[in-house]
Amino acid sequence: MRILVINPNTSTFVTEAVAAAARSMAAPGTEIVAVTGRYGAAIVSGRSEDALAAAEVLRLAAEHDKGCDAIILAISFDSGLRALRELSPIPVVGMSEAAMLSACMVGGKFAMITFGNRAAAIYAELCHSYGLGARLTNVLSLPPLTQEEQMNPSLVVPGLARIVGETVEKDRTESVILSGAIFAGIAGEVAAHVEVPVLVGIREAVGMAEMLVRLQPDKARTGSYRLPDAKQIEWPDPTLAERYRVR
Amino acid sequence: MRILVINPNTSTFVTEAVAAAARSMAAPGTEIVAVTGRYGAAIVSGRSEDALAAAEVLRLAAEHDKGCDAIILAISFDSGLRALRELSPIPVVGMSEAAMLSACMVGGKFAMITFGNRAAAIYAELCHSYGLGARLTNVLSLPPLTQEEQMNPSLVVPGLARIVGETVEKDRTESVILSGAIFAGIAGEVAAHVEVPVLVGIREAVGMAEMLVRLQPDKARTGSYRLPDAKQIEWPDPTLAERYRVR
Amino acid sequence: MRILVINPNTSTFVTEAVAAAARSMAAPGTEIVAVTGRYGAAIVSGRSEDALAAAEVLRLAAEHDKGCDAIILAISFDSGLRALRELSPIPVVGMSEAAMLSACMVGGKFAMITFGNRAAAIYAELCHSYGLGARLTNVLSLPPLTQEEQMNPSLVVPGLARIVGETVEKDRTESVILSGAIFAGIAGEVAAHVEVPVLVGIREAVGMAEMLVRLQPDKARTGSYRLPDAKQIEWPDPTLAERYRVR
Amino acid sequence: MRILVINPNTSTFVTEAVAAAARSMAAPGTEIVAVTGRYGAAIVSGRSEDALAAAEVLRLAAEHDKGCDAIILAISFDSGLRALRELSPIPVVGMSEAAMLSACMVGGKFAMITFGNRAAAIYAELCHSYGLGARLTNVLSLPPLTQEEQMNPSLVVPGLARIVGETVEKDRTESVILSGAIFAGIAGEVAAHVEVPVLVGIREAVGMAEMLVRLQPDKARTGSYRLPDAKQIEWPDPTLAERYRVR
Amino acid sequence: MRILVINPNTSTFVTEAVAAAARSMAAPGTEIVAVTGRYGAAIVSGRSEDALAAAEVLRLAAEHDKGCDAIILAISFDSGLRALRELSPIPVVGMSEAAMLSACMVGGKFAMITFGNRAAAIYAELCHSYGLGARLTNVLSLPPLTQEEQMNPSLVVPGLARIVGETVEKDRTESVILSGAIFAGIAGEVAAHVEVPVLVGIREAVGMAEMLVRLQPDKARTGSYRLPDAKQIEWPDPTLAERYRVR
Amino acid sequence: MRILVINPNTSTFVTEAVAAAARSMAAPGTEIVAVTGRYGAAIVSGRSEDALAAAEVLRLAAEHDKGCDAIILAISFDSGLRALRELSPIPVVGMSEAAMLSACMVGGKFAMITFGNRAAAIYAELCHSYGLGARLTNVLSLPPLTQEEQMNPSLVVPGLARIVGETVEKDRTESVILSGAIFAGIAGEVAAHVEVPVLVGIREAVGMAEMLVRLQPDKARTGSYRLPDAKQIEWPDPTLAERYRVR
Repeated sequence: MRILVINPNTSTFVTEAVAAAARSMAAPGTEIVAVTGRYGAAIVSGRSEDALAAAEVLRLAAEHDKGCDAIILAISFDSGLRALRELSPIPVVGMSEAAMLSACMVGGKFAMITFGNRAAAIYAELCHSYGLGARLTNVLSLPPLTQEEQMNPSLVVPGLARIVGETVEKDRTESVILSGAIFAGIAGEVAAHVEVPVLVGIREAVGMAEMLVRLQPDKARTGSYRLPDAKQIEWPDPTLAERYRVR
Repeated sequence: MRILVINPNTSTFVTEAVAAAARSMAAPGTEIVAVTGRYGAAIVSGRSEDALAAAEVLRLAAEHDKGCDAIILAISFDSGLRALRELSPIPVVGMSEAAMLSACMVGGKFAMITFGNRAAAIYAELCHSYGLGARLTNVLSLPPLTQEEQMNPSLVVPGLARIVGETVEKDRTESVILSGAIFAGIAGEVAAHVEVPVLVGIREAVGMAEMLVRLQPDKARTGSYRLPDAKQIEWPDPTLAERYRVR
Repeated sequence: MRILVINPNTSTFVTEAVAAAARSMAAPGTEIVAVTGRYGAAIVSGRSEDALAAAEVLRLAAEHDKGCDAIILAISFDSGLRALRELSPIPVVGMSEAAMLSACMVGGKFAMITFGNRAAAIYAELCHSYGLGARLTNVLSLPPLTQEEQMNPSLVVPGLARIVGETVEKDRTESVILSGAIFAGIAGEVAAHVEVPVLVGIREAVGMAEMLVRLQPDKARTGSYRLPDAKQIEWPDPTLAERYRVR
Repeated sequence: MRILVINPNTSTFVTEAVAAAARSMAAPGTEIVAVTGRYGAAIVSGRSEDALAAAEVLRLAAEHDKGCDAIILAISFDSGLRALRELSPIPVVGMSEAAMLSACMVGGKFAMITFGNRAAAIYAELCHSYGLGARLTNVLSLPPLTQEEQMNPSLVVPGLARIVGETVEKDRTESVILSGAIFAGIAGEVAAHVEVPVLVGIREAVGMAEMLVRLQPDKARTGSYRLPDAKQIEWPDPTLAERYRVR
Repeated sequence: MRILVINPNTSTFVTEAVAAAARSMAAPGTEIVAVTGRYGAAIVSGRSEDALAAAEVLRLAAEHDKGCDAIILAISFDSGLRALRELSPIPVVGMSEAAMLSACMVGGKFAMITFGNRAAAIYAELCHSYGLGARLTNVLSLPPLTQEEQMNPSLVVPGLARIVGETVEKDRTESVILSGAIFAGIAGEVAAHVEVPVLVGIREAVGMAEMLVRLQPDKARTGSYRLPDAKQIEWPDPTLAERYRVR
Repeated sequence: MRILVINPNTSTFVTEAVAAAARSMAAPGTEIVAVTGRYGAAIVSGRSEDALAAAEVLRLAAEHDKGCDAIILAISFDSGLRALRELSPIPVVGMSEAAMLSACMVGGKFAMITFGNRAAAIYAELCHSYGLGARLTNVLSLPPLTQEEQMNPSLVVPGLARIVGETVEKDRTESVILSGAIFAGIAGEVAAHVEVPVLVGIREAVGMAEMLVRLQPDKARTGSYRLPDAKQIEWPDPTLAERYRVR
């Protein structure tokens, strides 16, 4: 099967990192095709950039999903997930969604970890919007990365291990989700330093997408996730406008 | 004061209807400036069109908010509300948000009313995302409008009055929110036929916007609603890209 | 329009403080009439005094609401809010209710701040009773005021700024509500020292009351907020008993 | 032990009915002392009358609790329960509170049954305010009693049995709480006609009060339920004012 | 009346401790019969041992409930409570359930206290499963007992008093539940050192059981708590298999 | 990889049905090993049988999990899921858990469908215990199967399609979970007759188990899901007792 990994950040180094992590998880016979955003922020970091990324996700899917069996959103805000799930005839999985659902099967409550204090509230809202607020203990923030840490992400592992240790004792956290592309490369290191399971999203998303492709649930023919009625929309991108025109 | 009313639907007749309703509520000295979407669906009716409308809302605000004191989103999905609230230095109010918060002050729980079964789930999610799920009894759907009803909306009043009567008795609904542009013109008629207060959003939004302008709460300087850091984004529209460039 | 501000505390200095704050917010043409409790505690500080204040609120409204267009409860427990909303033909707004609903439009979650540890649980219950528990991060308590601080409230600003800073970082609080008459005079000072919007209730309540007066939602004719049936009640105060007699 | 049963309705026939039901449940050696409201409505039926009843409850307790070991509020709105729990040095139990907590031990979710549509929302709010909303399936209303039914309450049993049967099948209701004095006399008849346990409040409240008297939990010395500080309050009733004066 | 106290831990010293505490609470005329688990862990301390204890609870009830009027589960996980409530014709009360419901009547929110970090999540889930999550502030853990502390439990009182003091101030906790057999002996000491009511479960359970015996609610004849249909089950224990055979 | 499918019902025809469904989903290289309960009910149908099944699940795992990479509980109550997740070093997935988590990725809210009214409340509690209550619209019951329907399950499809159609329109249900072994054989037929995706649990569980095996999350070394400490337990089955003895 072929899975389209959409990274609506406009940074190709992020795409490469998540594509590599995706391939490390993919079953034999699963092909990972990864694409990068043309429009939006280099690294989506807040509410308005998330909204722009959602529109870009729809455009990227329209441009690239031909011949694909499922789509993964490789952005930890899961930008545009519900929108694309309506517009797409094939299964769509969000990276953070996959991490949260997997954490449910690992057992107990989970914490999410991010950098800085802009994104934390957004992750908490995302979790609640999935109806999973009861499983979330907290969204914890590490200080924004220094330049040295960006060059050598392993430097954040001790601080990360410390706040995970605290939330495990204080909040009854039983697994942690590392939210952000930077974590992709150090997940193994982190796991070695903490006492609870660690999830990063992209790997879980590959497993979920493969499951859904094999499961082949019918596309809804009623309700809010059925395909839009054929209609004309105005949009700079013709492929996306075309997507609405015919049904 | 000057309030910018943004209608991201691309239909000018909707803009005219909400602008008229807004002016009927505005205090002396309040000027209503209404703009219509250039990109997106004529009438936004589902999840993906909502996502496109959110991006268009950001673009319209960047193009038109100069000299304005507050912004109202004149679309009952409140498309892009949180995104614009981050990106905008002036207060932003959503039409459905204003209806729901006003319903809280009228007392008890409220129901929302819509047409067809595509939008109902979206309204329920919107209400829960505002933390107001405990005040919502249900989102009720009338059948999609017939052509005759579109020409003469008064024809839906009897059916509407009937389902409101039912939710009042069965669900302990104590007010109803009519969600959709079509309702703007018949709200008075509906109110005469039901026994609980009726809210339509655009009028409440004007009152809320005026309140916030006079209140002048400080813009957050931390957290998820502070302005984005200055950055370069790629976007077809130069005004929106400019909005991110300088801080 | 004329707005009746009811302060069921029996302290006139509180009435004067809230009336001044109310007038600072009122639109041109809005008259603020403020009345003080005759029965009850000088400063309502707990559950039983709150219950007595609720009865006094009903009595004060019956005595003073003639010719008024809306009522504001100028007590941060919103004592008797739902009761008066049923009994009164005109809109009623609670001070804390208005602060919480306004905080929703400022964005994100809010914290409430009080003094001592008697009132904190009551504020949290109030917030949950409005269905807004999902928007509340915490109710934080400052130590009870010293005599010196009562004389010079500005002395509490540094301590207040510190606990606000902590809740912003730790709980993802994005605005704060200062609950208590003492705060009315120092809100501006506090706002200058914290990084999130600050709300005090009385000013927001004036804006909400004006909005409701212009909106003129119908009084419910069914359900729990319709007027009581005409009946005889026994009550020491004849005006209040009269209020129930005729319909 | 001696239990004070406070009925803040001003109707002595209600007092007599609940006192009889209370005595039918009381353990050997438990004395039931029942008192009737002087001020307020004959039958408390809505929000504002509930607020007046709360104040009257405080007054009645101050007047009559000498020598008593616990207090039961014999009114199904539990008017003033939290207020009296703060002000009283002895345990206080609400009739509906006792019914709901007992229903938890019977198993599963419960429904409440009332007459008319004014009280239903109030019962639902009460249940949620106790943190028991997750156990409540619905508050169901029977039509207001006809004069014939008031004379002969058994006439309502068939209609009651029918709506109970419906909620059992449709809502997974596993017990029902009959809320209202009228039900006291027909509880046995109802129980014979429905397939789930039936609770009426006053009997459960007696058992709960006896349990608390024997348990003798310490009165809180901090937080929102500790006794008010000694203070002067203005109140027409000297006994109640006295209650606040000395500590 | 006769109450069967089932301790599915296989430690008789636990049974003796809870039986003594139960007898200290029992009304005159109430006989306490206490039995100890034959199968399972000496002290049930985690999820799988809890599951084994649930099966053992059913077996012990089948073996010993003849002539009894109610059953108390003397294990703070309330192992098998819902299962036995279905299978048993007489009332069943859980020790932690009784503590939580009693805490509701004492007022406000409660905290639970345990040892180590294995059980804390289980208590929190238990509380939520009863629909009482809104009343729980936190489950706090003391360090696992040292050998010295096991010999002399009074040694933990100072540490316990300190964490209770903290949760009272920080979380608005208004009562505490001590979860674990070790606490039975030191509850009085703890109560003397903290400022909020202290609950231990077994004493409250006795009061609740007596209340239910006198109340005599009908056994459900429909829904999930009615007796199982007569059927053959395979089980090593003949008494338990017999319990399912005849109806 | 090898997945152990545990059916704690003592009916081998159920085991065969779920094993066949599991194999229809398994990826190339995945071996399905299915075992049947020795102790308990032929078809687990209520609370006490569920408790017995949980103990049997632990025993079956101890007996059969050698050489396996993951375990699936093939019983729609997910009996013993959390208990085995603690006791087992390999991943464990519940059939209903897998269905619910998959429904989350299909989009919107889901309904569960069962037979009779004994199990409905149990499924609802299960869903809430996973923190997924906000995604559940309802648990709907079909009448208990007639003998004719047991022979020819296709006979229930029309009735099933009708109640699904109703919940889709009335409750905004966007997918349905068929809970019960009987459904395994007719899922395809049902899917053809309803307009929303249909989930049955066993197939989703296979995909989830494969995902977890490839993901290899670390077993928790702290908290409530870490392995029990080595200890002696009394249990009729030596394999299970052995499981606790050594660590």
